[in-house]
Amino acid sequence: MTNMNFLPEGFLSTGIHSGIKKKKVKDLALIYSKTPAVAAGVFTRNIVKAAPVIYSQNIIKKNKIHTIIINSGCANACTGKMGLEDVRIICNELAKALGVHKNSVIMASTGVIGERLPVKNIKKHIPELNNKLSKKGLGDAARAIMTTDKIPKIATKKIKINNSVITLTGFAKGAGMIQPNMATMLAFILTDAEVSNNVLLKTLKKAVDISFNRITVDGDMSTNDTVIAVANGAGGTKIEDKEEIAKFQEALNQICLKLSEMIVADGEGATHLVKIEVDGARTLMDAKKIAYKIGNSPLVKTAIYGKNPNCGRIMASAGSAEVDFNPEIIDIYFDNVRVVKNGVITHNDSRAKKIMEKKEYTIRINLNSGNANFSILTTDLTYEYISINASYKS
Amino acid sequence: MTNMNFLPEGFLSTGIHSGIKKKKVKDLALIYSKTPAVAAGVFTRNIVKAAPVIYSQNIIKKNKIHTIIINSGCANACTGKMGLEDVRIICNELAKALGVHKNSVIMASTGVIGERLPVKNIKKHIPELNNKLSKKGLGDAARAIMTTDKIPKIATKKIKINNSVITLTGFAKGAGMIQPNMATMLAFILTDAEVSNNVLLKTLKKAVDISFNRITVDGDMSTNDTVIAVANGAGGTKIEDKEEIAKFQEALNQICLKLSEMIVADGEGATHLVKIEVDGARTLMDAKKIAYKIGNSPLVKTAIYGKNPNCGRIMASAGSAEVDFNPEIIDIYFDNVRVVKNGVITHNDSRAKKIMEKKEYTIRINLNSGNANFSILTTDLTYEYISINASYKS
Repeated sequence: MTNMNFLPEGFLSTGIHSGIKKKKVKDLALIYSKTPAVAAGVFTRNIVKAAPVIYSQNIIKKNKIHTIIINSGCANACTGKMGLEDVRIICNELAKALGVHKNSVIMASTGVIGERLPVKNIKKHIPELNNKLSKKGLGDAARAIMTTDKIPKIATKKIKINNSVITLTGFAKGAGMIQPNMATMLAFILTDAEVSNNVLLKTLKKAVDISFNRITVDGDMSTNDTVIAVANGAGGTKIEDKEEIAKFQEALNQICLKLSEMIVADGEGATHLVKIEVDGARTLMDAKKIAYKIGNSPLVKTAIYGKNPNCGRIMASAGSAEVDFNPEIIDIYFDNVRVVKNGVITHNDSRAKKIMEKKEYTIRINLNSGNANFSILTTDLTYEYISINASYKS
Repeated sequence: MTNMNFLPEGFLSTGIHSGIKKKKVKDLALIYSKTPAVAAGVFTRNIVKAAPVIYSQNIIKKNKIHTIIINSGCANACTGKMGLEDVRIICNELAKALGVHKNSVIMASTGVIGERLPVKNIKKHIPELNNKLSKKGLGDAARAIMTTDKIPKIATKKIKINNSVITLTGFAKGAGMIQPNMATMLAFILTDAEVSNNVLLKTLKKAVDISFNRITVDGDMSTNDTVIAVANGAGGTKIEDKEEIAKFQEALNQICLKLSEMIVADGEGATHLVKIEVDGARTLMDAKKIAYKIGNSPLVKTAIYGKNPNCGRIMASAGSAEVDFNPEIIDIYFDNVRVVKNGVITHNDSRAKKIMEKKEYTIRINLNSGNANFSILTTDLTYEYISINASYKS
C-alpha cells in the first residue's frame, strides 16, 4: 500500500476550478478510461437521493463506463426534475466531447443541498477538462472533490496475480463528523484488472461493508453518498478463479479501509480517532447496535474531546442501545486499562486519562455474553465541528 | 397553571446542602406526605439502571409511600451491589427518623455515574432534613435536585372536581442536551387528590407519553430517569368516575407539558427552542421516526444555532429515518414560510432566516401521504453544550 499518486493502466484524470465554488479552488474532476470499463456502485440508501445518484445508479446497472465527472460545491439534491435534467445535459455534452457513448458517462456531486448546478459554466469547462486529462492528474482530481476536507485522500496498491501486476487506486472525500452525520462520502476505486460486473459488485459490497459502512451509520447516509469501482482490464490480467478473487478482494478491502480511516481522521474538527470495539456479544447485530450507539453519543464524543474518563457515559450509552444484556458482567477497557469491571466503575482515572491523551486509542466493551464482535471508528465532538456546521450551508 | 411555589395539602418538603457537591449549593431534597400516599412511577428503560431506580421501582410496586429523598451530585449508577446497599441504608435510616415504615421510603439520584454516595454524611444530615420539612420548602427541594440546570422548574395547577379543589404540583430537573442525550431527567408530581394506584399509573403514563417522552428519545434514556406521581388524598376529593379521571388527566398533562417545556428551554447551552412537527405521514410510527431523526441531527441542530436556513439538511435527515416516503411531494415550513415545495428547495432564504432569528419557532414537515402526525421539541447544538460536556464528569 502506498499513498503515491498514480493511476492504473489505461486511466487518465484531472481536476480544475470551474467556478462552482466561489473561492478559487478546484471543484470539478474527471476520471477517464481509454477503454469501456466494467463499473459497480454502492449508493446512499437515503430516501432523498441527489440527482447524480439517481442518474448514475440507473446508467451503471446496464452499461460499461468511460468516464465519471465529479463536482464539489453543489450536491444537486432536492432540485427536482430540473436537477436530473442538468445531469443529463452535462453527461451527454461530455460524451460528445470525448467521443464516447452517452450511456458511458456518469456523475457524482457533493456540496450544498438545494442549489442547481451551473450547467452552462460546467459545459464551458468541458474542453479544459478534456485537454488536461493526464496520467498524472490523480492529485488534482482528489483535490477537486474536497469540501471541508483538509487533505486529499488517495491510496494505491499493486498486487501480483498470475505473475502480472495489477494496480488498484482509490481516492475519496469525507469530512463532516461522519458519525452520526450526513456529510457526503464519495470514493472511487480504479483498477486495470479485468473483472466481471458480478465479481466487481460483490467484492465492492464486501469491501464497503467492512470499511466505509463502519464509519457511517446505516440508514444515516447523505443524499449523495457514492462508492464506485471501475475495472478497465488494461493491465491484461483476468480475475476469475476463487484464489484470484480472494486476492483482489483483499486488495480492495485494504484500499477501502485506508480511505475510510483517512476520512475519519480528517473528520470536521476531529482531534481524536477512537475505535469502539464491542466484544462478547450474543449476536453481531447486538454488537453493532451498541458500537454505533456509543460511537454516536454526543456525550461520549465530547468526553473524548475533553479527555474526560467518564465511563458512566459509555455504560449509559450501551444500556440505551435497545439490546438486552446483563450490565453486571460488563467490562470496559481504554486500550489496556480496565475502567469498568463487572459493571462497576473502577476509578482508574489517572491511567485512563493518560490513554485519552493519545490521538488514537480503543474503547473496548466486553459484554461477556457470547462470541460476536463488531467495531467502528469514531471521532470526538469539538468546538470546531460546531463552528464549521453552524455556518456551512449544506 | 401557575409557577407559584406551594405544595398540595398534606405535603412538606425541603432542600439542603449536605456536601455531596463540593460547591456550597443544595444537593439533598426531601418530600414528605403526612399520610401514606399512593405512588406511581415511570422509570428509565435503560438496561443499565442506577441503584435508586432498581430500589424504588421495586418498593413502589407494592407499597404506599411517605417520603422521597432525592440527591444531586451523584447518580449512584454503575456502583454494583454496594450502591444498592447504600440506598437501602439511607432509606431505612430515614424511615426510622421519620417514624414511618421502611417500605414507604424511596430514593432518586442524579449526577456523576460511577461514584458511591457519601452514606455517612447523608445519614448525618437526616435530622436537618427532618427539622426543615415545611409547607414552604418546595423551592428549596426544586433547587436541591438541579445539576447543570440554570433554573428550578416548578408548576402548580388547581382544578375543581365535585365542588372541591385539588392541587397538583410538579417539580423537575433536566438540562443535558436532552436530545439525543442521556442527561438525567427527574420529575415529581404531588397531588392531594385521592386516586387509586391503577388510575394514577395509567394517567401518569399517558401524561409522560405526550410530554417528557417527546423531549427524550425512546430508548436513549439515562441510567436514572424517573418520573414519580404521589397522591395522598389529603384534599378529600376522590377521582373515580370517567369524568373526574378525564379532568385529572388533563391537569396532569398540563403539569408534565409545562415541566418538559421548561426542561428543553433550559437545555445545556440551548439558545433556540424548536418544535419539529411531522404531518401527513402514513403512520404515527413513521411521523415519530422522522421527527426524532430531524430533532436529533447534529447538522440540523448546529444549523438552528447558526440561523442557517439549510433545509437540505432537514430533507437529508428525513430521508435517512428508515421510513419509506415519496420525497417528491414533501413540503417543509419554518413557521409560515415554505422552504421546500414538492421536495424542491424554494430558496426563501431571507424570510426563513428571519424566522430562525426567533428564540422559538416550528419546523413543519408535511409528507402529504396520510393523516398521522407527531411532534417533538428540540434545541440547538452550541459551543456551550460542548464546553459543559467536555468537562462535566457524568
